[in-house]
Amino acid sequence: MGSIPTLYVTQGSGNNIKPVLVAHQLGLDCHLKYINVLAGETRQPEFLDINPLGVVPYMALPDGTGLGESNAIAWYLAEGSALMPDTALARAQAVAWMNFEQTKLEANISPVRFFTYIVPDLEAEHADMIPVWRERGNAGLALLNDHLTGREFITDYGYSVADIAVFGYTHLANEGGFDLGAYPAVSQWINRVENQPGYKTINDLLDGKDSGLSQAA
Amino acid sequence: MGSIPTLYVTQGSGNNIKPVLVAHQLGLDCHLKYINVLAGETRQPEFLDINPLGVVPYMALPDGTGLGESNAIAWYLAEGSALMPDTALARAQAVAWMNFEQTKLEANISPVRFFTYIVPDLEAEHADMIPVWRERGNAGLALLNDHLTGREFITDYGYSVADIAVFGYTHLANEGGFDLGAYPAVSQWINRVENQPGYKTINDLLDGKDSGLSQAA
Repeated sequence: MGSIPTLYVTQGSGNNIKPVLVAHQLGLDCHLKYINVLAGETRQPEFLDINPLGVVPYMALPDGTGLGESNAIAWYLAEGSALMPDTALARAQAVAWMNFEQTKLEANISPVRFFTYIVPDLEAEHADMIPVWRERGNAGLALLNDHLTGREFITDYGYSVADIAVFGYTHLANEGGFDLGAYPAVSQWINRVENQPGYKTINDLLDGKDSGLSQAA
Repeated sequence: MGSIPTLYVTQGSGNNIKPVLVAHQLGLDCHLKYINVLAGETRQPEFLDINPLGVVPYMALPDGTGLGESNAIAWYLAEGSALMPDTALARAQAVAWMNFEQTKLEANISPVRFFTYIVPDLEAEHADMIPVWRERGNAGLALLNDHLTGREFITDYGYSVADIAVFGYTHLANEGGFDLGAYPAVSQWINRVENQPGYKTINDLLDGKDSGLSQAA
């Protein structure tokens, strides 16, 4: 594998786009290995040998060290770069908003989008939780909108890995039926992120041409 | 207020202990202002003027800058100290485990403990969710136990702010009826944290003698 990290990722995922967008914007060389979650590849022994938790994104360093959690992989790749906030306060703000993203945004937007848009056959099975997730997701988006009102980016530093982390599922919320037009500061910020140098869409970044399971060995 | 941060905290909380334990172990000078959550003080205008989100812990810097989220405040206080991992990989591991703590541990252990131990009058009202939280909390503790098997501390660096973050609610899980004896690597790690220089218990660190609302002005 040489000296560069391998990123195991899947298509169409707001978590998986994060490390790939960081790597792309920084021009980092990474192996991208595509894992087809919907086809059950994260549960196959070949992948469980790599990441026993059976989830993506996952990063493997050349020495075999592994790292999970989308925000943590993004953080690792951003260390020492212009995407890492340069003050203790702004780094702590990044940690704060990464926690917020995982607990208030991703935890609610991701399942609604998954069960109503990605695999709508499963919507009926989750009919009791969908309105709950939707209400909580909207509460999270409202807090994010308050935060971004009068601000350019998530932390005081400027465009950073924290924006990429929060952007992950927020910019896909419309696919879960969330009305981003109701959150104008969020919509304007999404536009700012999408206009950063080197930005590519989730479909361009995660094009899923190869399969990690057939090629990772 | 001088040049030192003010920490708004409440008693008996696994989130609130985190920044206070970091500050104590590093010998940092902080104002501690106690907010009585159960008496509704986080919802009073005096506190909402300080933190519009109405939650603790919350840190206010002398220049008025505020920071929320327990793990982020702990991170800020640990920057530049021996409690901050000294490699990019270990810092990313800290970010990963802080996300894990908030989504898999705190999100489940905290409500079970709150509704069965802190305010048991509310247990019946949450009877449907308590077994769900308990099952998810045990799943999180099992993953943590796997991680800590054969390891001394959360990251490769040694004792750090990541241990304090994960310790917050994990060491209180027994008060929520979780059987920590079933997780020997977790139990041994709790013991190692409690034997670090300068460790104090939650009751000693958060003694709640004053009220932030009466004294913060």
